[in-house]
Amino acid sequence: MTVKFGLLGAGRIGKVHARAIRNNPDAELVAVADAIPAAAQSLAQGYGIAVRSIDEIAASPDIDAVVICTPTDTHADLIEQFTALGKAVFCEKPIDLSVERVRRCLAAVQANGGTLMVGFNRRFDPDFMAVKAAIDQGAIGEVEMVTISSRDPGAPPADYIKRSGGIFRDMTIHDFDMARWLLGEEPETVMATASVLTDPGIADLGDYDSVNVLLRTASGRQAVITNSRRATYGYDQRIEVLGSKGSVAAENQREANIEIANAQGFTRPPLLNFFMTRYTEAYANEIAGFIGAVDNGTATPTTGDDGLRALALADAALKSAQEGRAVKVSEILA
Amino acid sequence: MTVKFGLLGAGRIGKVHARAIRNNPDAELVAVADAIPAAAQSLAQGYGIAVRSIDEIAASPDIDAVVICTPTDTHADLIEQFTALGKAVFCEKPIDLSVERVRRCLAAVQANGGTLMVGFNRRFDPDFMAVKAAIDQGAIGEVEMVTISSRDPGAPPADYIKRSGGIFRDMTIHDFDMARWLLGEEPETVMATASVLTDPGIADLGDYDSVNVLLRTASGRQAVITNSRRATYGYDQRIEVLGSKGSVAAENQREANIEIANAQGFTRPPLLNFFMTRYTEAYANEIAGFIGAVDNGTATPTTGDDGLRALALADAALKSAQEGRAVKVSEILA
Amino acid sequence: MTVKFGLLGAGRIGKVHARAIRNNPDAELVAVADAIPAAAQSLAQGYGIAVRSIDEIAASPDIDAVVICTPTDTHADLIEQFTALGKAVFCEKPIDLSVERVRRCLAAVQANGGTLMVGFNRRFDPDFMAVKAAIDQGAIGEVEMVTISSRDPGAPPADYIKRSGGIFRDMTIHDFDMARWLLGEEPETVMATASVLTDPGIADLGDYDSVNVLLRTASGRQAVITNSRRATYGYDQRIEVLGSKGSVAAENQREANIEIANAQGFTRPPLLNFFMTRYTEAYANEIAGFIGAVDNGTATPTTGDDGLRALALADAALKSAQEGRAVKVSEILA
Amino acid sequence: MTVKFGLLGAGRIGKVHARAIRNNPDAELVAVADAIPAAAQSLAQGYGIAVRSIDEIAASPDIDAVVICTPTDTHADLIEQFTALGKAVFCEKPIDLSVERVRRCLAAVQANGGTLMVGFNRRFDPDFMAVKAAIDQGAIGEVEMVTISSRDPGAPPADYIKRSGGIFRDMTIHDFDMARWLLGEEPETVMATASVLTDPGIADLGDYDSVNVLLRTASGRQAVITNSRRATYGYDQRIEVLGSKGSVAAENQREANIEIANAQGFTRPPLLNFFMTRYTEAYANEIAGFIGAVDNGTATPTTGDDGLRALALADAALKSAQEGRAVKVSEILA
Repeated sequence: MTVKFGLLGAGRIGKVHARAIRNNPDAELVAVADAIPAAAQSLAQGYGIAVRSIDEIAASPDIDAVVICTPTDTHADLIEQFTALGKAVFCEKPIDLSVERVRRCLAAVQANGGTLMVGFNRRFDPDFMAVKAAIDQGAIGEVEMVTISSRDPGAPPADYIKRSGGIFRDMTIHDFDMARWLLGEEPETVMATASVLTDPGIADLGDYDSVNVLLRTASGRQAVITNSRRATYGYDQRIEVLGSKGSVAAENQREANIEIANAQGFTRPPLLNFFMTRYTEAYANEIAGFIGAVDNGTATPTTGDDGLRALALADAALKSAQEGRAVKVSEILA
Repeated sequence: MTVKFGLLGAGRIGKVHARAIRNNPDAELVAVADAIPAAAQSLAQGYGIAVRSIDEIAASPDIDAVVICTPTDTHADLIEQFTALGKAVFCEKPIDLSVERVRRCLAAVQANGGTLMVGFNRRFDPDFMAVKAAIDQGAIGEVEMVTISSRDPGAPPADYIKRSGGIFRDMTIHDFDMARWLLGEEPETVMATASVLTDPGIADLGDYDSVNVLLRTASGRQAVITNSRRATYGYDQRIEVLGSKGSVAAENQREANIEIANAQGFTRPPLLNFFMTRYTEAYANEIAGFIGAVDNGTATPTTGDDGLRALALADAALKSAQEGRAVKVSEILA
Repeated sequence: MTVKFGLLGAGRIGKVHARAIRNNPDAELVAVADAIPAAAQSLAQGYGIAVRSIDEIAASPDIDAVVICTPTDTHADLIEQFTALGKAVFCEKPIDLSVERVRRCLAAVQANGGTLMVGFNRRFDPDFMAVKAAIDQGAIGEVEMVTISSRDPGAPPADYIKRSGGIFRDMTIHDFDMARWLLGEEPETVMATASVLTDPGIADLGDYDSVNVLLRTASGRQAVITNSRRATYGYDQRIEVLGSKGSVAAENQREANIEIANAQGFTRPPLLNFFMTRYTEAYANEIAGFIGAVDNGTATPTTGDDGLRALALADAALKSAQEGRAVKVSEILA
Repeated sequence: MTVKFGLLGAGRIGKVHARAIRNNPDAELVAVADAIPAAAQSLAQGYGIAVRSIDEIAASPDIDAVVICTPTDTHADLIEQFTALGKAVFCEKPIDLSVERVRRCLAAVQANGGTLMVGFNRRFDPDFMAVKAAIDQGAIGEVEMVTISSRDPGAPPADYIKRSGGIFRDMTIHDFDMARWLLGEEPETVMATASVLTDPGIADLGDYDSVNVLLRTASGRQAVITNSRRATYGYDQRIEVLGSKGSVAAENQREANIEIANAQGFTRPPLLNFFMTRYTEAYANEIAGFIGAVDNGTATPTTGDDGLRALALADAALKSAQEGRAVKVSEILA
């Protein structure tokens, strides 16, 4: 079967998914909607597909599934609208910035018997998948500690930060999902420190640019996440997992695997500088995972609950940084 | 403009080029020919294109260019046939196993004013391109020594070796091209040692599996090429260039950039095991280079002369290994 | 001038210092004392020096300086005794497990105008010195985040843990010192998580084996320390410092810099497995730093205050792990 | 037993051996001789030993063994003189620049029943020993190809080159020994290319600065050696051995194991720049090997024959480069 797609949102990430759908032999991109007609038009022309409104897509019998790439504050409503109509939904994270709203949305999805996948692209990165596979095959024994270093080349625009919910919700949220995935057990308590070191303008927006987070599960497994909104050497994405029998780590990726040696030393190029370049394969694998689940009627590889739990960890981390104490996840999800 | 392609040969490498053409926005794959009807049919269906005979493709006004992926002994004739008709030709190496035949073919192409590119995919590998760019930017000063390690995971089938012209012509030929490209000066003399170490059956075929070659240019620049038909750890493809101010090297590539540590040590996965996987991007860049040249009426990035010179170096190396002496390239190309 | 040494304690670490003193051209090892006569005798014979009692060493006019390698609970008294007599003192960390006792001891040293160096060997490791030099030379701009991974190959004996003050005071204390040294600013608050993952026997002793610590300075600089009492792959000692202009990191060391490649992958040997082997050069440099300071009458490279502050961080971390809150260093040092 | 040493030659390499002997618990340095009295005096004072003439050392009953670090043209005579007197001899390579003279010397040693070790320090480098151990343990199966990259940071003074016998005899000779050791089978034929690329003054001296050599054994095993008298990035010393089951390689060593990352990339320091620093441990192990052999009356780990064979390979390589042909070792040793 071919899964027929409507794309909601023709922006940067919408284009990424459009390409992934187009290159997938089991999927067909049928129509695109965007609040900005020119954006929808341009994408539609490039792919030879139709421009439709969101409601038209909702009403289209030739569309099985939608990918939601619209602004965050529309996600929950769209998820409810489309799952109610029996369309499978892939939604970019986050579902909403409010844990309460997310819970209501997920309840609605469940009531509808709907299919919802929330996008956590990193789980689909080949290197990180190899790390997970090594753990699952027992290569490092029982997982004890997860260490995640995640640094952006530079801060997003002020406008984005204003609406994003802050660093824990727009950036660390990916690492919370990775930590949950790799720990193999839900974090119970969260500790975090946060400061502004790269740009005082970020403090003016009430956000941080430099944070560290500790997670602890019921059995004592721990995760450390370290984030910065600035890394001059590129987009830094590393994970390391220590287990009872050994450790496994994924290295960064760079544009070219070369090294120049001279009297100043041995130099390799900076890292890939942009998340879309770094995670090209991950985005393709992610959509493939969704298509497979829709096609086979099986569970999606990531779920609405994953979206909820990562958001709860972000809320807990923010609270911990602000109040200077360990925050239980149950305080947030109570 | 869109360059419209006919594909001659629907085998393994034909499929690689078909995919690269299909993914290139400036090209269109129109038809395929293959001596085995089922092979042509299968590829044609996958791409929704026509099956035509070679002569039909030659006569097709809707085809601007052909990619020749047929058996080696047909290359020269096809090049002559298609360039005579004004079609641009991309031909897999080698043009022919006989230097004499190659020279006649190239003379015919020249007489036709034809466009001919011979495929040396490695020049289009992003890492090797970065090495070349570093040299061209002066990062290592004047080139002095080139070192190329190139080892296959395993030997090809006996049938292939029988027709390939032997290791120097089927395997080292890529390294000869790389050496010429990186030395920036034509090799003048060749020395080689050769033996059979991995499989006595290869000796029965009159071929070698383990060879080393030294090249020397007029100004004294040198290149070392080391080849084996067996490397248990994967497809080993390294280059290193020493210059007056420093050196530049390209590292191998592996499936996943992870490392597992335990009491036995720190282990990274084996190398990518297959040349088509290792050089996926190179093949796409190669065809893009051909398309750009055809589209703009400019010189192709690699030429028939490159094919001739690499073959002459292969002949000289074989002669050197057999006669135990330095062989001048001019002896071959006299 | 040659600095003449008495060695107090002929155990494992005493032997390390004896060797470093013997190999230092500006020092002379004169006598050794140990509560176990055979231990003192054995070391004295190996070096051709005298066995004396501690009080005899205190009374020896031919001894300028002592190295204290006796059990922790004797350190403070010995420091007071020897500095009162005008002997320069190098003391293994910690001065005492009680912050209060340490403060009284340091007050006595100050009253005596005494010379006291507390051993933090890692500051003298050539790689870590190179990291510090890079920071001091401005290679990474302003320091923002310090990340320290420090894991022991295996847990110490239960007897040691009973008397050591626990993981924060016996193991993390080195990392606290490194963090202070690299942050370039005193930590103000401490957060920590701790658990027992490698051996339930450690819980029975009231200690932890797996801890993570976050430090934060007044200006918002942060450090992360991750510790485990078990690493199957050897003695894991890494640091990484992120700054406004870049980062600098020190890699682990292994017994041999070789790599074996086969069908299972590319394997390098495990890490150096023992802290004395890993830090051989550091111990020699450390004593050389002490000798130079004594010889020139200059400040010692590490001080009693360094010992106090690292201990206070350990106390704060333990309190944080136990109470689930950020602990201010000022609570400990109030 | 303690082996009592006389040192012949107090120059740079003499000092290296003096230190190694001094630090070895099974050896004692008794006296030193040097044609330059001040040199002998200075070394003697540093170690508190006697200055004696060569003949006095020859006549000293309190000296068991000598280390010959005098100019090359005195080596053979001294070896003959001291072995005739029953003293064990460690001689720096080469025994002589003439194969004929070396053979006569070795015959004399044999007639005397003498003990002679020729210094090939690299065999005693811990990393290279680990490579050899891996081979001996079967980690890579049957050895097929050895690749040695050996580059000096800069050329030696013209005066040295005049007397050294040229690059093959003063520099490649170490690599010839390594190749023999690692191949596990004697090379039968030699091919070499040579040129002058770094300094025309070297051509004026009749020498080369850039050479590549191919060795081939009777069974077809091969070795490649690549040398340059200039490497801006430090003292480059790499080996790699390919076998039937895998490969093993030793990496270069640098002063500090750190890496600095910024917008220009990831940079590690240059290599150790000086052979004495790079091979400090190798020199100590080498002398320890000699001492052990003398002490136990067993065979020395390297022999006069090793010196002869490496020299013969150097002669063959030079002849090959000059005559443009494969030279058989038997032509030299006939």
